[in-house]
Amino acid sequence: MKYIEKFIQEHIDNNIDFKNNPLSIQIFTKSFRKGKVITEFGQIEKRGYYLIEGTVLCIIDDDGEDKVIDIILPDSFFSAYNSYLLDAPSDIKVLASTDCKVEYFEKENLKKGFETSLTLNKLGRYLKEKFFLDKLEKEKTFLTKTSEEIYLEILNTKPEIVKHIPVKRIAQYLGIHPESLSRIRKKLT
Amino acid sequence: MKYIEKFIQEHIDNNIDFKNNPLSIQIFTKSFRKGKVITEFGQIEKRGYYLIEGTVLCIIDDDGEDKVIDIILPDSFFSAYNSYLLDAPSDIKVLASTDCKVEYFEKENLKKGFETSLTLNKLGRYLKEKFFLDKLEKEKTFLTKTSEEIYLEILNTKPEIVKHIPVKRIAQYLGIHPESLSRIRKKLT
Repeated sequence: MKYIEKFIQEHIDNNIDFKNNPLSIQIFTKSFRKGKVITEFGQIEKRGYYLIEGTVLCIIDDDGEDKVIDIILPDSFFSAYNSYLLDAPSDIKVLASTDCKVEYFEKENLKKGFETSLTLNKLGRYLKEKFFLDKLEKEKTFLTKTSEEIYLEILNTKPEIVKHIPVKRIAQYLGIHPESLSRIRKKLT
Repeated sequence: MKYIEKFIQEHIDNNIDFKNNPLSIQIFTKSFRKGKVITEFGQIEKRGYYLIEGTVLCIIDDDGEDKVIDIILPDSFFSAYNSYLLDAPSDIKVLASTDCKVEYFEKENLKKGFETSLTLNKLGRYLKEKFFLDKLEKEKTFLTKTSEEIYLEILNTKPEIVKHIPVKRIAQYLGIHPESLSRIRKKLT
């Protein structure tokens, strides 16, 4: 059974029997080595990914400097979303921050699947809603909490981020200098 | 013709003839006086709104202090989104910042409409995508620009915000002290 099918059973409809009703899109499995760029700036994103193992970063360019806009942990979907949705050159770079294992599908294939599969339509709706709500949550967090509070929250709720992602990248996610994050980390130990 | 129908014609499908195929939900029109709370903290949001005239603010509470998470201008949909989507008590307060005129629909009514109306399904998908992309754009802006740059961008692209919304509220949107915004404004004049 594919991981994406398992995700659908867990989050969308646990009565689906994929053995007798296989998902009407092709799902591929792939591995990326640490440091591999999955989607480059300027590329048009044509794939949706599901992370099985590893960590992935979505990065934007701020005058030659990286800023991390998303940290992806296993069991989530990711993509250079806006390029995927708008068919425009990506201003998001998607990077394997560790060795990664993913499943992915082709956008064109999914679009065809939408025409006939209720399950895929439900998945599409679920993901759009989830992406929006996640962004809203993050926005609220960044508007109301200090960098130190956000770091502490990450440490408590997603310690694997602190374990697997370089300090420099976490600082780029918090929007602060690595030195400021080092000070915060020292203070907290 | 309803404004929401006009929006659908402009953004989703300009071949729809609403005269012969009326939208299968009820749309109401309503006015709010300046300062009126449209959705209160803790309330469960049951309506989706379309702003015809005026400006609306979406506010979150940061330990008793308001932070502005969204500034809504005419010709956009708004709501206490997460409460609407999750059926949970709202942590967003929706406020008429000026006298406002809106159209709105009831969520329950829209959900019924989804069962039969392709147009409403398209609208639902369009809006979820738009809300997500807007949030992503805002996130990128706040991660890469200074408050002064963001204020300047607002001044150039959406001058009506500066015209109609109190400085205090714009500062709450930028996440800075009103005094810092005053300094920025002085510097720019």
